[in-house]
Amino acid sequence: MSTKTNISSKLQEFFKAHLPITQFMEMDVESYDGQTLILKAPLSPNINDKQTAFGGSLYNASVMACWGMAYLKTLEAGIQCNQVVTKGTIEYKAPVQGEIRAICQAPDEETLKHFIDAFHAKGRARITLQAQIECSGKLAVEFEGTYAILKE
Amino acid sequence: MSTKTNISSKLQEFFKAHLPITQFMEMDVESYDGQTLILKAPLSPNINDKQTAFGGSLYNASVMACWGMAYLKTLEAGIQCNQVVTKGTIEYKAPVQGEIRAICQAPDEETLKHFIDAFHAKGRARITLQAQIECSGKLAVEFEGTYAILKE
Repeated sequence: MSTKTNISSKLQEFFKAHLPITQFMEMDVESYDGQTLILKAPLSPNINDKQTAFGGSLYNASVMACWGMAYLKTLEAGIQCNQVVTKGTIEYKAPVQGEIRAICQAPDEETLKHFIDAFHAKGRARITLQAQIECSGKLAVEFEGTYAILKE
Repeated sequence: MSTKTNISSKLQEFFKAHLPITQFMEMDVESYDGQTLILKAPLSPNINDKQTAFGGSLYNASVMACWGMAYLKTLEAGIQCNQVVTKGTIEYKAPVQGEIRAICQAPDEETLKHFIDAFHAKGRARITLQAQIECSGKLAVEFEGTYAILKE
């Protein structure tokens, strides 16, 4: 098991231990390689009246993909902190007709360094991250979330 | 049973029939009087690691309070349509430490008339609605969502 797989299993454990709704959604970490985090959830528990993915489930997968990226980056930096989402914006561009796959890219090195340095200096920091969900190769959902970390 | 109660029971039936995640969340219509729609959900299935309400559940309650308002207003206008959320923005201002209560006010008469008239004229229309969640008398969540209705 690689270190990245090891660290991403911590996110899966966090979902299991603390967020019952993610278990109902059957939300799983598909992959994490240090740069890209993908969360997945099957359609069935997340379905709506149109037999496509419910907008609330698309939000939950997106908000947790970005939350997970911030969580894994603070773990990698050896930081113990409380982390909360402070703002989320989601645009629904096309229906998602099968499995939900929310994809979040790591922030660039400068943004990440600023985030970690600010936490060490002030005991708090904020970061804005994006996630996307595609369906049949088309962009279906665009999400942006802001997250705060605070000393425990 | 008043007409408003009658009509709001249709929203509850919709959740039950079409949105399994709302059943896991134990999301219920608390009240609807034609002007204010309140959805409620207990903390337990919606809890997070801080023993407060999960941000995704707060979004789901908010997005469905506004969705429900648009749904009930189209029912009252005798419109049969498909309804989708196209955009959502949520700000988390304070944690919610107990039951989630998402409150949506009806649009003003002019906005509602424009929405219904546009649908009759063009077979499609859009409306933006707001929801709020309070905790211990303080504003905890502000949500704004845009919804589209389309001819079936």
